[in-house]
Amino acid sequence: MDEWLDNLRTETPQQGFELAIKLSRMGVKYTQPDMDVLNAGRKDYAGNPEFLIQASQVIAVHFQTVAKANNYWKE
Amino acid sequence: MDEWLDNLRTETPQQGFELAIKLSRMGVKYTQPDMDVLNAGRKDYAGNPEFLIQASQVIAVHFQTVAKANNYWKE
Amino acid sequence: MDEWLDNLRTETPQQGFELAIKLSRMGVKYTQPDMDVLNAGRKDYAGNPEFLIQASQVIAVHFQTVAKANNYWKE
Amino acid sequence: MDEWLDNLRTETPQQGFELAIKLSRMGVKYTQPDMDVLNAGRKDYAGNPEFLIQASQVIAVHFQTVAKANNYWKE
Amino acid sequence: MDEWLDNLRTETPQQGFELAIKLSRMGVKYTQPDMDVLNAGRKDYAGNPEFLIQASQVIAVHFQTVAKANNYWKE
Amino acid sequence: MDEWLDNLRTETPQQGFELAIKLSRMGVKYTQPDMDVLNAGRKDYAGNPEFLIQASQVIAVHFQTVAKANNYWKE
Repeated sequence: MDEWLDNLRTETPQQGFELAIKLSRMGVKYTQPDMDVLNAGRKDYAGNPEFLIQASQVIAVHFQTVAKANNYWKE
Repeated sequence: MDEWLDNLRTETPQQGFELAIKLSRMGVKYTQPDMDVLNAGRKDYAGNPEFLIQASQVIAVHFQTVAKANNYWKE
Repeated sequence: MDEWLDNLRTETPQQGFELAIKLSRMGVKYTQPDMDVLNAGRKDYAGNPEFLIQASQVIAVHFQTVAKANNYWKE
Repeated sequence: MDEWLDNLRTETPQQGFELAIKLSRMGVKYTQPDMDVLNAGRKDYAGNPEFLIQASQVIAVHFQTVAKANNYWKE
Repeated sequence: MDEWLDNLRTETPQQGFELAIKLSRMGVKYTQPDMDVLNAGRKDYAGNPEFLIQASQVIAVHFQTVAKANNYWKE
Repeated sequence: MDEWLDNLRTETPQQGFELAIKLSRMGVKYTQPDMDVLNAGRKDYAGNPEFLIQASQVIAVHFQTVAKANNYWKE
């Protein structure tokens, strides 16, 4: 796969959150690289609260990593 | 998206918990930005204990991050 | 919401565990503040092992946070 | 509830693992204190691999906490 | 139960990963000690991707613990 | 099993993410070593968003471990 992640540092917590979202999506994309299959499945789940809360869970785990990598943006 | 997160610091643990809830909801909102779809799905699940416990789980993961960012409000 | 959390410190690990339970329940309550809806749903699940183990999972995540905030009650 | 947890220290990793199991079970018991309801539900799930793997997951999270509290039994 | 875990140290990351698998399985075994019940249930799930991914999740959590106990095999 | 993991260090975060994917897959493979069974099950789930998000969750947990082992690639 092309280079898509060269650094875990971000300037703000919000950018860190958005990086966590990207990591979460890349986990899905590596598991199912066929975008047509991916998008077909996604439509059925787009409004499913259980799916959405699981997506939010993955983001939360990645945000832990990104926040730590940025020392919680304290500096 | 507009700026919605510029800091992980809060004055009290309770405010930190409420920030964790916000982070949890933003994870959902980034995944499904259409508020109509979101609210339609949410109604069916509002009283579903499995959904509620999963929501509580995401909050717990974010609260770990926020608590650490605030050094557990020890200072 | 009224103040319900002003400190993560507890005197004993057991009190810390009970605080983790409170945090877990508050995550549910913030997501579904209507106690009637909450209690109605809860009855159906009270004996459901999958629900109970998920509740136990959320408590475990919060207990990590509380235990760390108390330096594992080593002092 | 009676006192059941006064310390997170154990002598060996195996005792720490068994403490993690106890913590996992106490999370269930606090959520559903009625032992009859608990045992009735448990029978149906005793051989269910999804339930068992979820139980193992909760133990894993608690074992992280206990292992850290014991400095991974390095000393 | 007999002694089965006296140390979290391993020589290599791979041995650490295999210890994480053992910890994951022991969590199941403590919850359901009857090997016949265990094996009966397991057959139905052996090819079920949702079950397999959950098993992989438990291993991941234990691997965090083992990796940390070994200081990530840096030394 | 043959040697497949001798180090948690990677040169870049992206290689670390790819190692997290490998760890996630190896967790599945150790649980179900029969590749025919594995591939048969996988086809049914390849486009299932719930499965994909769970796979992404396991990757996220392993990425935490790998990122920490590499000190978040700060050096």
